[in-house]
Amino acid sequence: MRHFLEELEELQQRLLEMGGLVESSIRESVLMLVERRAQRADTVWRNETRINRLEIEIDELAVRLLALQQPIAGDLRFITAAIKINTDLERMGDLAVNIAQRAVVLIEKPMPKAFIEIPRMAMLAQQMVGKALDAFVRRDPDLAREVLLSDDEVDALRSYIYRDLIQFMQQYPSSIAEGVDLILISRHLERIADHATNIAEDTLFLVKGVDVRHHAETSA
Amino acid sequence: MRHFLEELEELQQRLLEMGGLVESSIRESVLMLVERRAQRADTVWRNETRINRLEIEIDELAVRLLALQQPIAGDLRFITAAIKINTDLERMGDLAVNIAQRAVVLIEKPMPKAFIEIPRMAMLAQQMVGKALDAFVRRDPDLAREVLLSDDEVDALRSYIYRDLIQFMQQYPSSIAEGVDLILISRHLERIADHATNIAEDTLFLVKGVDVRHHAETSA
Repeated sequence: MRHFLEELEELQQRLLEMGGLVESSIRESVLMLVERRAQRADTVWRNETRINRLEIEIDELAVRLLALQQPIAGDLRFITAAIKINTDLERMGDLAVNIAQRAVVLIEKPMPKAFIEIPRMAMLAQQMVGKALDAFVRRDPDLAREVLLSDDEVDALRSYIYRDLIQFMQQYPSSIAEGVDLILISRHLERIADHATNIAEDTLFLVKGVDVRHHAETSA
Repeated sequence: MRHFLEELEELQQRLLEMGGLVESSIRESVLMLVERRAQRADTVWRNETRINRLEIEIDELAVRLLALQQPIAGDLRFITAAIKINTDLERMGDLAVNIAQRAVVLIEKPMPKAFIEIPRMAMLAQQMVGKALDAFVRRDPDLAREVLLSDDEVDALRSYIYRDLIQFMQQYPSSIAEGVDLILISRHLERIADHATNIAEDTLFLVKGVDVRHHAETSA
């Protein structure tokens, strides 16, 4: 049996690897829209396969750590947080796949004005994923709090995009399908940001012992 | 310290209580739309408070069980599954709140035809939540598989509603905002069904030791 700290380190490394793949998928799926290059989707599909395998590996590693090492206190909380974060990351990967699937269709169509805010929203969401995971492995509460602040910005962008696209569709009813698809993409990005926020909240709970969930909930 | 089995039993009971509240919130948020009665939202807000408190209680109970009882094998897997299911249930509660918030606005407006499929989708999603949790606490793989089958039906309804509402908006551009809101509600219901599917998959893994995740993924 390897040393406990080594296995904990491996757990962290796999989570970071998974986070890197999720970031790559968000970036590629939205760049595909911006550059109108369907080829970029290949990276997203490839990442997805690896993300799904990592999810299972991380789960197994976490359960093995719980069973064989019987950790207590801080380590126990760290491992149970890792189990949750694993789920968050896997779902972000799925959301990036959803964006890419929608983008494949959309790159053939003309784009409305509000579209320019979507790459910005994607960049923010992507940064949130990276920061949230860094905060978790470094146990850094300040970095975790930055993630919570970015989430407000993402929500503001989501509302702006929604209003702008409704107007656009009213003006150009022949582009309603594209408008709806862009709204759905913005919702996928919002959910990715929500998952990053979950990771940041888990981190604050881990480090500070303070449960920040359900204290500042925002509406849809 | 209470007996281990008693604490496990309490963990199950709290998950079932949470599931009951989630089912109630789905039902009330959609009935609000059908009956056009904003009052029904009160139950949803009340459930939300209790669901959020239960999420924290269940997490604490699960971590305490892991720390004090140091369970192995089947019990360990059951408790780690409970931690995940807890997260799924809390997010379903949030989604029902999102539906209710959107419904509050929509009940003032005329409804398009595709709307009649939304209550059906809601009923299916609600049944899936109940069945998935029953399957988990009874460790019943057949019931878990029923949930997976229902998910295909929910996805088919989601696609039907999407196509129908796009057509409706093209015909009545003055109702675009309502059309988009109904599409978003159908997506919230789809996500609730996805969370129920996660619970069913966790259950199959728990009972059969077979990981059914990522074998039959559907697209957006």
